[in-house]
Amino acid sequence: MKYLYVLLLMLTNSMVFSQTRYVMVIHGGAGTILKENMTPDQESAFREALTQALQAGYTQLQAGKSSLDAVEAAILVMEDNPLFNAGKGAVFTHEGKNELDAAVMWGPTRAAGAIAGVTTIRNPIKAARAVMEQSEHVMLTGKGAEAFASSKGLEIVDPSYFWTENRWKALERALKQDSLKTQLDHDGNKQSTNPALTNDYKYGTVGAVALDRDGHLAAGTSTGGMTNKQYGRIGDAPIIGAGTYANERVAISCTGWGEFFIRGIAAYDVAAQMEYSNTPVAQAALAVIEKIGSMGGDGGMIALDDRGNMAMPFNTAGMYRGAITESGEIEIAIYK
Amino acid sequence: MKYLYVLLLMLTNSMVFSQTRYVMVIHGGAGTILKENMTPDQESAFREALTQALQAGYTQLQAGKSSLDAVEAAILVMEDNPLFNAGKGAVFTHEGKNELDAAVMWGPTRAAGAIAGVTTIRNPIKAARAVMEQSEHVMLTGKGAEAFASSKGLEIVDPSYFWTENRWKALERALKQDSLKTQLDHDGNKQSTNPALTNDYKYGTVGAVALDRDGHLAAGTSTGGMTNKQYGRIGDAPIIGAGTYANERVAISCTGWGEFFIRGIAAYDVAAQMEYSNTPVAQAALAVIEKIGSMGGDGGMIALDDRGNMAMPFNTAGMYRGAITESGEIEIAIYK
Repeated sequence: MKYLYVLLLMLTNSMVFSQTRYVMVIHGGAGTILKENMTPDQESAFREALTQALQAGYTQLQAGKSSLDAVEAAILVMEDNPLFNAGKGAVFTHEGKNELDAAVMWGPTRAAGAIAGVTTIRNPIKAARAVMEQSEHVMLTGKGAEAFASSKGLEIVDPSYFWTENRWKALERALKQDSLKTQLDHDGNKQSTNPALTNDYKYGTVGAVALDRDGHLAAGTSTGGMTNKQYGRIGDAPIIGAGTYANERVAISCTGWGEFFIRGIAAYDVAAQMEYSNTPVAQAALAVIEKIGSMGGDGGMIALDDRGNMAMPFNTAGMYRGAITESGEIEIAIYK
Repeated sequence: MKYLYVLLLMLTNSMVFSQTRYVMVIHGGAGTILKENMTPDQESAFREALTQALQAGYTQLQAGKSSLDAVEAAILVMEDNPLFNAGKGAVFTHEGKNELDAAVMWGPTRAAGAIAGVTTIRNPIKAARAVMEQSEHVMLTGKGAEAFASSKGLEIVDPSYFWTENRWKALERALKQDSLKTQLDHDGNKQSTNPALTNDYKYGTVGAVALDRDGHLAAGTSTGGMTNKQYGRIGDAPIIGAGTYANERVAISCTGWGEFFIRGIAAYDVAAQMEYSNTPVAQAALAVIEKIGSMGGDGGMIALDDRGNMAMPFNTAGMYRGAITESGEIEIAIYK
């Protein structure tokens, strides 16, 4: 009787997993993404780009490559697409520059690499991976990170490569709003808590998590940061544990108001709940987004565990996101 | 009978806490610190400096100031003392510069501030606090962080302020060892795992954690980084969750081989164990140092919980460390 029960349990479990085993989840940023502000053309462009990214990663996994290869492949597609605030589509800083950050983490060994504040590396995710695999460091910044990437043969571009008209106009709007805020609002602290003025240019990041045939997880995140950012600000994306984390059991990539994700150690907090209180991935990820919300922040995350269970919680109006199952079924969503 | 037992338990607990309630713990770096390499004069200089730092923090706490004020006061003493690799005594980068990092976190709100890669801010811990209290960001780097600190009226010094003969000689030794390594060792990966060549110039950080009369915790860390570091490398000290963390229940500051502390999310991992599996602070801190060790890294940390329990585990030969109790009793230790 006992054996029958165990057998039934095993069958049930394997049936559940065979139906819903995801192998890759991606995001293209969270924020004030509302259906009413989007044309049908824009929406299908995003859907197509997310699909391409998922397919690029899936192709790697199907070929028996590692989840790290899949994460890199998916993020490369999004970095090269000006729709996303990463790589080619990076937003402008206050000084009119494009400063890019990226991070990657390989679950089995918890090796990690990150770069921050670079202006000439075409694909920051490749540089983050090179830091992980070809340096003794985890995090390199600025000119040093660029010199390192160049020494490893990565493609270096003129900073003008990252100029796009849309992002330039976004900076102009942000600068105009800033001068407006200076006139209207004498309380500096309030500036950051007025969603109408800040939310539309605070977010935007791309990320991917994947599970390969060996059962290994990897996570990666890449971003152009925050429109109009100042003072060499670093957000959560390149901070291991905040915006990006992977171990043997779970891989996470975040997007949102970076300061809150840093203070909440958002990505690792999912893994910690799974390890120390055996919380399922979906519940752990949701709890972290709720915690970020209770601190006053917003954004979202993607998480994938070693059995193919995934979660994509967010507390913003929308998050560009998608997932692909072991059998190649694609799910894409944008709004709540 | 049951009530008697509970009463006894309460009494026992309160007696234990009244004997050993610590209000501040500090460290001045971990590494290959061996008694046989230290003169009696050097040893007493370190003991005196640690005592001064503890007293500076304790004075704040006794005056009813916050744990954040106490942490800042203790770290300022160590930053201004050339004995420690932070502030005045910062080590040199590969290019012969002093690049400083610092972070601070305030438990009750989990507000945090950090700066990285600055060369002209006399007291990095003050700049980290200014980022936390006077900017909407958590982490600022390089020239941007310096411009911010200057705009907030912090003391800016010529980079030559940080030049000390001892640290300059350490760089010369490291550069010599590097050229030796290049001749002896053709496997790049092995460079980082030869303790004899690297350990003596990899470490050195100062940190403090404190508990104030309101029961509020704070943590801070400041460092000159790694002798001979390249490529704008950022270690764990300014990474919230890695080298520095504080919440309502515990405050942590780490020192050691930064890359491993980043990958292990070392500081937050103590808090996570306490929150999710109710592990006592000493056990949680020890588990993290053991985890870092099993990954191949070394170093130490200080941790203090909201009931005055503290831990100072490390897996190196020594760690400069000290603690002070509520009643002002000071404990200082250096070796194992």
